[in-house]
Amino acid sequence: MRRVVDVIRRTYESFGFLPLETPAVERVEHLLAKGIAEKEVYALRRLSAGDGDDGAKDLALRFDLTVPLARYVAQHHRELHFPFRRYQIQPVWRGERPQAGRYRQFIQCDIDVIGDGALSLEFDAEMPAVVFQAFRRIGIGDFSIRINNRKILGGLFKSVGLEADRDIRAAMSIVDDLEKIGIAAGVQKLGELGLSTARAEGLIAFFDQKGDNESLLKALGERPPNALFEEGVAELEAVVNASVMNVPERTGAEALIVYQSERDVFRRSLKIDLGIARGLDYYTGTVYETRLDSNASIGSVCSGGRYEDLTSAFIDARMPGVGISIGLSRLISELLREDVLKAERRTIAAVLVTIQDQTTRDLCKEVANGLRSAGIPTELYLETKKLATQLRYADRRGFPIVVIASADELRSGFVVVRNMVYGQEQKVAIPQLASAVRALTPPGMEWNQN
Amino acid sequence: MRRVVDVIRRTYESFGFLPLETPAVERVEHLLAKGIAEKEVYALRRLSAGDGDDGAKDLALRFDLTVPLARYVAQHHRELHFPFRRYQIQPVWRGERPQAGRYRQFIQCDIDVIGDGALSLEFDAEMPAVVFQAFRRIGIGDFSIRINNRKILGGLFKSVGLEADRDIRAAMSIVDDLEKIGIAAGVQKLGELGLSTARAEGLIAFFDQKGDNESLLKALGERPPNALFEEGVAELEAVVNASVMNVPERTGAEALIVYQSERDVFRRSLKIDLGIARGLDYYTGTVYETRLDSNASIGSVCSGGRYEDLTSAFIDARMPGVGISIGLSRLISELLREDVLKAERRTIAAVLVTIQDQTTRDLCKEVANGLRSAGIPTELYLETKKLATQLRYADRRGFPIVVIASADELRSGFVVVRNMVYGQEQKVAIPQLASAVRALTPPGMEWNQN
Repeated sequence: MRRVVDVIRRTYESFGFLPLETPAVERVEHLLAKGIAEKEVYALRRLSAGDGDDGAKDLALRFDLTVPLARYVAQHHRELHFPFRRYQIQPVWRGERPQAGRYRQFIQCDIDVIGDGALSLEFDAEMPAVVFQAFRRIGIGDFSIRINNRKILGGLFKSVGLEADRDIRAAMSIVDDLEKIGIAAGVQKLGELGLSTARAEGLIAFFDQKGDNESLLKALGERPPNALFEEGVAELEAVVNASVMNVPERTGAEALIVYQSERDVFRRSLKIDLGIARGLDYYTGTVYETRLDSNASIGSVCSGGRYEDLTSAFIDARMPGVGISIGLSRLISELLREDVLKAERRTIAAVLVTIQDQTTRDLCKEVANGLRSAGIPTELYLETKKLATQLRYADRRGFPIVVIASADELRSGFVVVRNMVYGQEQKVAIPQLASAVRALTPPGMEWNQN
Repeated sequence: MRRVVDVIRRTYESFGFLPLETPAVERVEHLLAKGIAEKEVYALRRLSAGDGDDGAKDLALRFDLTVPLARYVAQHHRELHFPFRRYQIQPVWRGERPQAGRYRQFIQCDIDVIGDGALSLEFDAEMPAVVFQAFRRIGIGDFSIRINNRKILGGLFKSVGLEADRDIRAAMSIVDDLEKIGIAAGVQKLGELGLSTARAEGLIAFFDQKGDNESLLKALGERPPNALFEEGVAELEAVVNASVMNVPERTGAEALIVYQSERDVFRRSLKIDLGIARGLDYYTGTVYETRLDSNASIGSVCSGGRYEDLTSAFIDARMPGVGISIGLSRLISELLREDVLKAERRTIAAVLVTIQDQTTRDLCKEVANGLRSAGIPTELYLETKKLATQLRYADRRGFPIVVIASADELRSGFVVVRNMVYGQEQKVAIPQLASAVRALTPPGMEWNQN
């Protein structure tokens, strides 16, 4: 899990996103401004009031990282420099259907770019490239980044007679749920908004259009029903086209070994999907969802979009932004299922130094110190136990390498290095120990990557 | 802050401690088992009940990392291998004196070793070496790791007639507060436990003894009042003596440059202080506190000790352990005050690539891609603005390096690299750009250390 977080963090940083961490707790009024259901919010109270006032009134755990971002940008907008890029990797809490003793905590990994008044579509085009590189580095297998623009949906809804904001929001929601509820229920729900069955079926057929990006864009461009729709298509086309250049092509030796253009992989991964709407009200343009080919049924592992107004609930300024959020918990569980990731290792250290003879304790400490100074995490077996017990411990904990030494060996400057995977042993002079251990360490032990 | 956390994490891992992360929320009954005041605990409730049951009943935010460790070890003791070493770096929450809209969140960095039934004193001797190396690497200046053993205090209290556990706990608490409340109040409070003024003053003089470790141990050994006291002195002596060998001496070229023995620095830092008691009830042997010489008045930045029973509140097993906790928030504020640490940088990227001519946008993206592929975090200025505006942005955000290129330069394969600190510019062929940027990057930009 730490490796996955590190990959995401480094990818975010490679594009210049700044780390931001905010407290777990926000004011209830700020959390509710976004329109989340109250039952999903965990509020705080002190177990006993103590000094009269309970001091926790009006406070609750954040349920996403967007509200803290909005509050932060609103509070600091005079000191910040725009476009402001931040990333945030922290837990969020949501009250899901209650079960005895259960609570719900997730880790989200968000990036957003906030503009002061305006923000170029080029930033919408950067997001898929960032996600693509993060997921490629994690090694999650094939995935698709689905992209759409809510102006296309909005234009379409207007063209069939939906005018009220409330109805358009409801229609967006129905599109978002279509996969879950099915076509029949979708038609019925659209009917409740006043659309005839024929119109509803026509809309659903539109959302369900298949094809590559080029042919879909061509079809969309042919008969735009209104200006909003046309604007959405133009934006979608601009973002899709500008995006590919943000992915670095492999170069040099690497390109000779891997007979595959990274940009071609990206082009195949970035798919226009007219059925993507995102449930949340505040998206206004580009929207994204990312599905894993290995298990599309778990839903989107990375979603986001463009919004026109992050801050007006806090200050008298409308700041547009675009962002995406990787749902780490969902991603990790999928990586574990696919065996891309092993469950937490039982040891972080590569080496266990045993103490065979208690008179050599200090010499063994020196051996461990030497390995640590060479950058190799090393555990010293500090209990006074038989060597067999120490080796059993090393085996159960999964240490790949054990250092063993009798008093005679140590005093003549040698130790025995045991490869626990193959059971082989070799005698090594202490000054050569670190390099011998490096040679034996299996790939993937984390210290090797630092 | 991230650098400090990374140093602590790597030092912990170098000794073989495993990372553990637990949810922010624990059951109230588990939290209160440790005897913390209820008003310090933040409990959860859902803002509206929703499905009838509120689902958050009996849940609260953790106030330390020891309760989650105890619960974890109790739940998993059949799968764990002992001695079990874990580290945990996560926030905790405590309800301090209430003020409007205020809440208290701290980050703690804990290590503990848990034994199954027994645990060697060698682990008590490892803790100061781990703390020492972490603080030396952070570069916090001089500090002292004060060490004591509660059996000495307990033996002493018994010898002056305090028998009841409650009275001994109260006396420990008075010792712990002595620095804050002063000698007069100390004498008075000890008097309330039934001690004569002469006895109380004698005790306080004992706690206040000065001297190097050797002479203090000698004095303590001379007339032990009882077996408990004697056991405490023997343990303290064993731990102090065994500790130094866990610190690696500098070797090779490094030792020639730095004319100072690391072990001598450690010996001077590890100080027996008979006035250290730690407030918490569960410590039973070794106790530690760490003070910074630059600002001892902020109190301990790293405390801990030995406890005989981590788990019996959860399961029918007594598991002893020893651990320490670095209070990161307090440490960071001190590092900032001492200018050891600069406040969060305004940029994580070393380079801003400007776009001077919008027809060269894709070429500029390639330049940015190339830098990122070389491991250099790079921000691309994606808004369409005048070069002067882009340079002002780079200056305000603190980018050390800006890449500038006209269409002509780019098409002939060159860019201009501008050192923002000195204002110098140089023309560089694009294949040499990454190495030119590396040469210009000031030390301390984090990507340089990865």
